[in-house]
Amino acid sequence: MKIAILTIGDELLNGDLADTNTAAIAKTLMDNALPVHEAATVGDLEGDISAALLRLAKTHDVVIATGGLGPTEDDRTSRAAARAFERPLSLNTKALEQIRARFRAWQRDMHPRNEKQALLPGRSVVICNEQGTAPGFHLKNNQTDLYFLPGVPTEMLAMLGGYVIPSLLERFPDPPSLCQRAVTVFGLAEPDVETRITRNGLPEGVELAFNVEVPIVQVKLRARGEHAQRLVDRAEMAVRQALDDHVVGIDGATLAGVTARLLSAAGITLALAESCTGGLIAKLLTDQPGSSAFLERSVVSYANSAKRDALHVTQELLDRHGAVSAECAEAMARGIYQAARTDIGLAVTGIAGPDGGSADKPVGTVYLAMTSRWGARNERFNFFGNRDQVRLRTACTALDWLRRMAMARLSGTEQDS
Amino acid sequence: MKIAILTIGDELLNGDLADTNTAAIAKTLMDNALPVHEAATVGDLEGDISAALLRLAKTHDVVIATGGLGPTEDDRTSRAAARAFERPLSLNTKALEQIRARFRAWQRDMHPRNEKQALLPGRSVVICNEQGTAPGFHLKNNQTDLYFLPGVPTEMLAMLGGYVIPSLLERFPDPPSLCQRAVTVFGLAEPDVETRITRNGLPEGVELAFNVEVPIVQVKLRARGEHAQRLVDRAEMAVRQALDDHVVGIDGATLAGVTARLLSAAGITLALAESCTGGLIAKLLTDQPGSSAFLERSVVSYANSAKRDALHVTQELLDRHGAVSAECAEAMARGIYQAARTDIGLAVTGIAGPDGGSADKPVGTVYLAMTSRWGARNERFNFFGNRDQVRLRTACTALDWLRRMAMARLSGTEQDS
Repeated sequence: MKIAILTIGDELLNGDLADTNTAAIAKTLMDNALPVHEAATVGDLEGDISAALLRLAKTHDVVIATGGLGPTEDDRTSRAAARAFERPLSLNTKALEQIRARFRAWQRDMHPRNEKQALLPGRSVVICNEQGTAPGFHLKNNQTDLYFLPGVPTEMLAMLGGYVIPSLLERFPDPPSLCQRAVTVFGLAEPDVETRITRNGLPEGVELAFNVEVPIVQVKLRARGEHAQRLVDRAEMAVRQALDDHVVGIDGATLAGVTARLLSAAGITLALAESCTGGLIAKLLTDQPGSSAFLERSVVSYANSAKRDALHVTQELLDRHGAVSAECAEAMARGIYQAARTDIGLAVTGIAGPDGGSADKPVGTVYLAMTSRWGARNERFNFFGNRDQVRLRTACTALDWLRRMAMARLSGTEQDS
Repeated sequence: MKIAILTIGDELLNGDLADTNTAAIAKTLMDNALPVHEAATVGDLEGDISAALLRLAKTHDVVIATGGLGPTEDDRTSRAAARAFERPLSLNTKALEQIRARFRAWQRDMHPRNEKQALLPGRSVVICNEQGTAPGFHLKNNQTDLYFLPGVPTEMLAMLGGYVIPSLLERFPDPPSLCQRAVTVFGLAEPDVETRITRNGLPEGVELAFNVEVPIVQVKLRARGEHAQRLVDRAEMAVRQALDDHVVGIDGATLAGVTARLLSAAGITLALAESCTGGLIAKLLTDQPGSSAFLERSVVSYANSAKRDALHVTQELLDRHGAVSAECAEAMARGIYQAARTDIGLAVTGIAGPDGGSADKPVGTVYLAMTSRWGARNERFNFFGNRDQVRLRTACTALDWLRRMAMARLSGTEQDS
C-alpha cells in the first residue's frame, strides 16, 4: 500500500505559507496505521498539477490532494484532474446543493462565483464539506484512489476523518498493527530527556523519536506487530519513570489543557496578575473550554498605575525595588489574591525585550510569585530567546507551577514551596 | 530556470514534524527573484531518496535537498546521492576538518560516529556548516546543480544564504526583475475582496493571489520585468481604492502590529475588559514591543465577582440582563474606562462555546463596547466557527475598532460611532 500526498498552491512555493497539511494528514493516517510514502507540492499552474497527479497516480495506490478548490480564478485543481484523467468537468448537483446549504446555514447570499466549485470531473463522488464552501471529491483511476480536499486545514481534516479514512480502511481492512504514543514533557531540554530515557532503557522493538517545540519536548514511542500496544504501554511506563513529574501527559496533552483540567478537578480557584506576559497565561488557560470554573480574573497590569490601583502595590515599593523585582511580583500576587479572594493568586513581572534590559536585569529576567491558601512561592528566572520565546517560557513555567500545585492538592500531599 | 526543493526524513511523512524548511527556502529564493517550481518529500529509505534525486535532477536546473546528513544510521542522503549519480563515497578531508573544528569550538570530544558525516560523493564541493556538525555539499550532474544541506533550520538557512544563493546568482546573474507585495485586509471575506478588486481592475501584467488565514485575507500582488516595481505600486493603489479602510497594511503588516503602532503614534491610552476572549486581545497587543506605551491594563473578568469588583458592574444589571448582554458590555467598558482613567475603555463579553449557548444567544454571540473621550460604541455580533475561531474573530474585530479610532484621531476626523 503506497500513499502519496499532494499539496497545491503558489503560496506554498513562494514562501508565503508553510505547509502544515502534509504533517496533519500524515499524522491522521499514521494513527490508522496507514504510512505515507511520498509528499509533493506544486503551484497553481494547471499543467503542473495535471503532471503531478498523473505521476503520483501511476506510482501510488492512493493520492490525497489538498488545495485549489476555492471559488477564485487561481483555483484550478478540478480542471487539472479533469484533464489528467480525461473526465471533462460537469456541474455536480450534489456539490451545488452542499454549497447552497452552506450559505443558507450562514444566512448569507451565495456568490455566483461559488457555483464554479460545483464543477467536478465526471464520475466523481462528492466529499461533503460541512464547514466551508469547497466540496471535495473522490475519483478512481485504474487501481488508484484519488481524494481531493480543500486546503483550509480545519475543513480538510474534517473531511479526511469523515470520508477518506473510512474509505481507506474499507480498501485496506487489515493494516499492520501499529501503536504509537506521544508523551508531553516540560522542564527538561531535549538532550536531558534523551539521556534520562536511554539510561533507563526501553523495551526492545520500540522506536523512539523527539519533537521539540520549545519549551515543550514530545517523546514519540512507536511499535509494530502483534504486541505493539503492550510494548508501547511498557515504554510509556519506562519514560514516566525516567522523567518523573516532568511528564505533563500523553497523546496531545498540552500544558495548558492538563493544568486547566487539574485545577477544575481539584476545585481550585485562581486569579492572575500578568505584567510581561500581557495576558498570555490567561489566554492559554481560557483556550480551554470550562475555564470559567476556576479562573476568577486576570489583570494585565502593564502600567504602574494599574499595579497600584488594581493590585494595591504601593508607590513606595515600586520606587524602592522597581516594577521588575521579586518584591513587586510578591506584592502583585498578594494583591490579586486578596482582591479576588481565590485559592491562588499568581503574578509575573519581567523584561520580555527587546528593550528595557540592564546589566543587573537583562532581557529575559522574570520574577514569578504565587500566594495561596497553602503557602507562597517566589522565584527569579533568566530565560533566553526573543520576546515571544521569553513570554512563552514564562507562561509555561507559570502553568507548570499551577499544574504541580493542583496535582499536590489532588493527591493529598503538601506542595513544597 | 527551474528549481526544486527536496526535503528528506521519515519524521516529515509520519506526522511527527511539519516541514518548515520548504517555505523558508522558498521565501529566501523569492527574495532573490528565484522562483521554486516544485517541492517533494521522501522518507529515509536510500532507494526513495535516490529515485527522487534522479527524477528532480532530470527535470530541473537546480535541486536543493535538506535532511539526512546527520551522524546516525538513518541519515542516508550522501549514500543515496552517491548511488544516484554514480560517485562513490570517499572521505572528504575538508569536511572532516570542519566537523573537528565544530567539536573544538564546543569544547567537546568528537564522537567516532561523526566521522561518517565527512563521507561525501566524489567531486563534491563542501558547504561549510558553522553552527552544527553536518557539512553540506554541492555537486553538478550534467546541467543540474544539486545542493545538499542539513535539516536543522538555523544551520540550513545560514548555509543557504552563505553559499547556495551566491552560487545561484552566479549561475543566473540576471534573474528577471520581480516585485511582490502583500496587502493585509480585514473585515471582508475572500470572495468579496476578489469581486471588489476585479471590478476595479488591476494594471495589465500584475498577478493576483489570495492567502486566507481567517479572519485575515492577504492580497498578493506580483509583477515581473523592467517595470515590475511601478506596476505593483499602481496595483497597490488600485487595491487600496477598491478595499478602502479594510486595508490594514502591506508586507507582513498584522492587525495587532498596525493597531499598536497607530495607538502609540496617536498617543492614545487604552484599558481592556475581556470576558470571552480571556486575555487574547491583551496578548495580541502585548506581542508588540513598546505596547506598554498605550496599554494601561487589561482585566480578564471571567467571573461575575470580577465584573462587580474590578469593573463596578452592578449585581442588579447582571441579574436583569445577564453577563452576556449589550448592557453588561457597556457597563464593563465604562467601568474599566473610569478605573484606569485612559482615553479608551474597551470591553467584550460573549459565548465562545462549545457550551453556554441558548436559542436567544447561540454560541458565537458577542457584545463589543467601547467608551472613550470621543464617544461610545456598542455592537452585537454573531460569529461562526469553533471556540478558537470565535475568540479570534472577536479579538480581531476589537483590534479593528481600535485601529480605526486611532486612524481617525491621527487624521483629525471624528470617529463615527
